[in-house]
Amino acid sequence: MRKLDENTIIEIFQKKLGYKKGHFVSEDVEQFRIAKKDCIVKVDTLVESTDIPKNTPLLFAAKKSIVGPVSDFAAKGATPQYGILSVNIPREFTRKQVEDVATGISVGVKEYGVKILGGDTNEGKELVINVCIFGSKDNNKIPQRSGAKQSDSIFVTGPFGYATSGLEIIMKRGGDEDKVGKKRKASAKFSKIAKMSILEPHAKLWFGRRCARYFTSSMDSSDGLSTTLNEMARQSKCKFVIKNPPVNQDVLDFAKVNNLDWKNLVFHGGEEYEIVFTAKQKDLPLIEKIARSSQVKLFEIGHVEKGRGEVILEINGKKEVIPDKGWHHLK
Amino acid sequence: MRKLDENTIIEIFQKKLGYKKGHFVSEDVEQFRIAKKDCIVKVDTLVESTDIPKNTPLLFAAKKSIVGPVSDFAAKGATPQYGILSVNIPREFTRKQVEDVATGISVGVKEYGVKILGGDTNEGKELVINVCIFGSKDNNKIPQRSGAKQSDSIFVTGPFGYATSGLEIIMKRGGDEDKVGKKRKASAKFSKIAKMSILEPHAKLWFGRRCARYFTSSMDSSDGLSTTLNEMARQSKCKFVIKNPPVNQDVLDFAKVNNLDWKNLVFHGGEEYEIVFTAKQKDLPLIEKIARSSQVKLFEIGHVEKGRGEVILEINGKKEVIPDKGWHHLK
Repeated sequence: MRKLDENTIIEIFQKKLGYKKGHFVSEDVEQFRIAKKDCIVKVDTLVESTDIPKNTPLLFAAKKSIVGPVSDFAAKGATPQYGILSVNIPREFTRKQVEDVATGISVGVKEYGVKILGGDTNEGKELVINVCIFGSKDNNKIPQRSGAKQSDSIFVTGPFGYATSGLEIIMKRGGDEDKVGKKRKASAKFSKIAKMSILEPHAKLWFGRRCARYFTSSMDSSDGLSTTLNEMARQSKCKFVIKNPPVNQDVLDFAKVNNLDWKNLVFHGGEEYEIVFTAKQKDLPLIEKIARSSQVKLFEIGHVEKGRGEVILEINGKKEVIPDKGWHHLK
Repeated sequence: MRKLDENTIIEIFQKKLGYKKGHFVSEDVEQFRIAKKDCIVKVDTLVESTDIPKNTPLLFAAKKSIVGPVSDFAAKGATPQYGILSVNIPREFTRKQVEDVATGISVGVKEYGVKILGGDTNEGKELVINVCIFGSKDNNKIPQRSGAKQSDSIFVTGPFGYATSGLEIIMKRGGDEDKVGKKRKASAKFSKIAKMSILEPHAKLWFGRRCARYFTSSMDSSDGLSTTLNEMARQSKCKFVIKNPPVNQDVLDFAKVNNLDWKNLVFHGGEEYEIVFTAKQKDLPLIEKIARSSQVKLFEIGHVEKGRGEVILEINGKKEVIPDKGWHHLK
């Protein structure tokens, strides 16, 4: 049997459906017009065997199924309004398990003001939560991934590295020693921050809705910071130069103590539901004001240069390419 | 481990999401308003282990994933315009298998003029095709399941029984004799009609769009004729009396030769993508005209009486209750 990677699968669908290369996954959300009105839609699927790490309580996993698509709306400055659910429930699920899934979804939709219109439940071999969210645009034009221009600044809406640290802590907290490796060393405080970061992330919806008018390009970062930056640089046909990686000292300490590469934690993990965006330097005061009032910790991580769709990390004059190594299914 | 049936699962979701009982599955499609415009949406999930019978070519299964939600639009007289796909592909799938899935979807969307906006692909333990279709209303008001009134006539848009006969023929064409039972006896002609009926159904979209203004109530029949009639009778708080079951002689012959109950084939199978609707007798000439020009074979199967949400089959003065025994997941 040959195994296909996700890009090959996407290309097959694109070809059969008559789309040009890149159409199928090129934006965070899709736009469509009904009766002369622009609508925004995003579908997201959480699959038990590939998207839910071992030891993750179902309630948190289910809540994340809402946070994911909401974060895409946030990155585009759009308002999520309605949702449709499709849930595959394995035959052996208990009432408690089903309730945890429903509660997680419920908490998620309440947090972001999404009204679930309906949906369907199915039996399946594994838990699958498919969420389709629609809404409207807050601005006339939504920022694209491809809009970054030379000399724009590059921003992220929060620190990176906590989610992957949290995953490391959760995955290696016991069980088969040979398989999971050594238990991770972390202070109780760091452990809590990191675990909550992976288990219960928050989409920066309010900030995105208010600030998107100033984005020249933007993208949700949940596939990993390196994947996000590379995708934006590639689509914008520019070089992204990162001089201040969005990492706090405690993540660097955790990496050092556990003999991990901090760059893997920060750039190549994924599951951070932040907005990565570029903006003109002149708009910085307004952007900072919105960040403050939205309680978002803004990081200006670098700038855009003329170049050919690559991401460069430059620290103390030392340059290295940051490859796209975030989360890709079936790879 | 306790097993939960679908109704229990639905009730858990309804409760957690704050809905009244019945909300979650009560209509064929959902309506929502964006910027003062009414939109229609329907999500449908095809799960390999429960929805795709053994020996079904993937191309047909995938095409059906489009026909399903389109048939719901047809029943409500609405126009499907856009679709979002979410496909879980097992790791061991070959290129040929992925291509068959993509081709089936492509053929389906072309047949009904649906534009796929995008979607996502995921790895999963089994094939899951999730389709979310949006569109608009052709009429001001869409017919509800609950609108049937005393003395209305009851119609279906095609004969029933072929799909289940086709499934019997496909499922029992070989393999483990003990498990599958005897091979079914059928003429080559009947076998072909029945197999195409289960493999490649067609939604009655054009008829539904043009005729829905005359429906007092309506519902897509794909969960089975008995389930559909019982649901409409229950929601309309009326008795549905069936005097002319929509069955052709060849289905009766197939049932007899194979020692099957024709009523099971006709009422309790499912997978027929017909519209079941009620209408006022005075509108019959217009309805028949639209049926003729839409090449739909209309069956007037009975009428609505005062009563309490039940379905009665009355043949030659003999009455029997038709229970709701169509397709229910997790039961």
